[in-house]
Amino acid sequence: MEIEILVVGNEILIGKTLDTNSNWMAKRISKYGHELKRITTIEDSIDVISKTVQTILERKPDLLITTGGLGPTFDDMTLAGIAKGLNRELELNQHAYNSIKRAYEHAHKQGILKLEGMTKEREKMSYLPQGSIPLPNIRGTAPGVKLTEGRTSIFILPGVPAEMKAIFLNVVKPILKEKRGKFVEKGLLFMGIGESQIAPYTSKLEEKYPQLWIKTHPRIGLSLEVEISITGFNVENGDELADKALDEIREIILSLNGKIRERD
Amino acid sequence: MEIEILVVGNEILIGKTLDTNSNWMAKRISKYGHELKRITTIEDSIDVISKTVQTILERKPDLLITTGGLGPTFDDMTLAGIAKGLNRELELNQHAYNSIKRAYEHAHKQGILKLEGMTKEREKMSYLPQGSIPLPNIRGTAPGVKLTEGRTSIFILPGVPAEMKAIFLNVVKPILKEKRGKFVEKGLLFMGIGESQIAPYTSKLEEKYPQLWIKTHPRIGLSLEVEISITGFNVENGDELADKALDEIREIILSLNGKIRERD
Repeated sequence: MEIEILVVGNEILIGKTLDTNSNWMAKRISKYGHELKRITTIEDSIDVISKTVQTILERKPDLLITTGGLGPTFDDMTLAGIAKGLNRELELNQHAYNSIKRAYEHAHKQGILKLEGMTKEREKMSYLPQGSIPLPNIRGTAPGVKLTEGRTSIFILPGVPAEMKAIFLNVVKPILKEKRGKFVEKGLLFMGIGESQIAPYTSKLEEKYPQLWIKTHPRIGLSLEVEISITGFNVENGDELADKALDEIREIILSLNGKIRERD
Repeated sequence: MEIEILVVGNEILIGKTLDTNSNWMAKRISKYGHELKRITTIEDSIDVISKTVQTILERKPDLLITTGGLGPTFDDMTLAGIAKGLNRELELNQHAYNSIKRAYEHAHKQGILKLEGMTKEREKMSYLPQGSIPLPNIRGTAPGVKLTEGRTSIFILPGVPAEMKAIFLNVVKPILKEKRGKFVEKGLLFMGIGESQIAPYTSKLEEKYPQLWIKTHPRIGLSLEVEISITGFNVENGDELADKALDEIREIILSLNGKIRERD
């Protein structure tokens, strides 16, 4: 599957919050052999969300996962922005309403929150775009949302990492697993020879193994240590091929008098 | 100024590398009163880079900062992608060539790199889009690049954090300072009342102080602790107004029997 992530939140754009959600999801997406094609981070603005969702849908990804902007306050605009982008109305979803109500009752009983009952702001979270399926949020109140538009399934998740992760593991991961592809990633570190010295050899290997990406990453400015990483999506015998390519790289590094350090 | 960041690199999209560069830059952009409007992360593909750069330029940001994909290997495609997007040729830049040559001579003399002299792969880094100004990279070899297209200044920076930071501090930060606007960010944490309970009050404050963003961030799922953050770009007396708004919030929290914790 081809997947895109849309991150909504001024707090990321002003540098107040480091987005660790995307990396956490990216790891799981590639682990199950799917390709994360793009991560887009935008501000809390109905128009910007709406237009960006439309642009993403034009690229027809299989999945679009959004994070952030689902809370009870006026600046949580993700659902309104997505509804506008899909030209759908927001409507009260009774399942969402009931689960939000239960979550607040529970929090009140436990003494976590003083205010009892539903308010306008709490109700707001149960207004979902037409056609939404609410996704239970066991770690918070705002439910996630699943929508379908054309060939794209849209998963709208909260920005609070614990809540995002709970819904992702519960709802998105099973889909990643069910439609799993094969992903292989192998690599090693080397010293003594720089990225530019190994480059002609990796280019030749890339021609020999066109199914694999063979990529070098200098760890420190002037290539004191370089990581080489071999990845492949849905490659027949990918594991075996990557091992063969890696063996050839070991030979090359040693023949150039480089030093190899296996990865942990 | 309005600013966009474009991150190029498969290593981010497969979750191998957490992008900390964007957050580091975002902090400095907002500190000097500029608005980071969007962060886009894409794969190493000439076509994807080219099209994405064109889309960003249609939004006419004042600055576009890119990171990643400047190295000597075949999969470092940022310059080729940007050249294609701007419909410019790549041409040998003699300044870039000389500085790359010097960096490799230096690394060779110091015994860091075994291979002496320029190679095809090392030369590759000195082919820049027409009209480029190379930006010295004191922490590595691949120079950064400055370009202008229409009203947008484009800064093309390496992805290795130490190299990105050195060029950013040297070249981009002085521009952020010179054109500085005013940015204010103040806040506090509260407990005992949830995000949804404070929401109607912050909505009213937002109406009273339309120049400020007043945003709440739950720290844990069910709002055990909520951070409130007040931000403003280029607001006249922004500091004073934010202090006033924050005082009103303190009153509200206390009147609702909430507990306040000042931020460090």
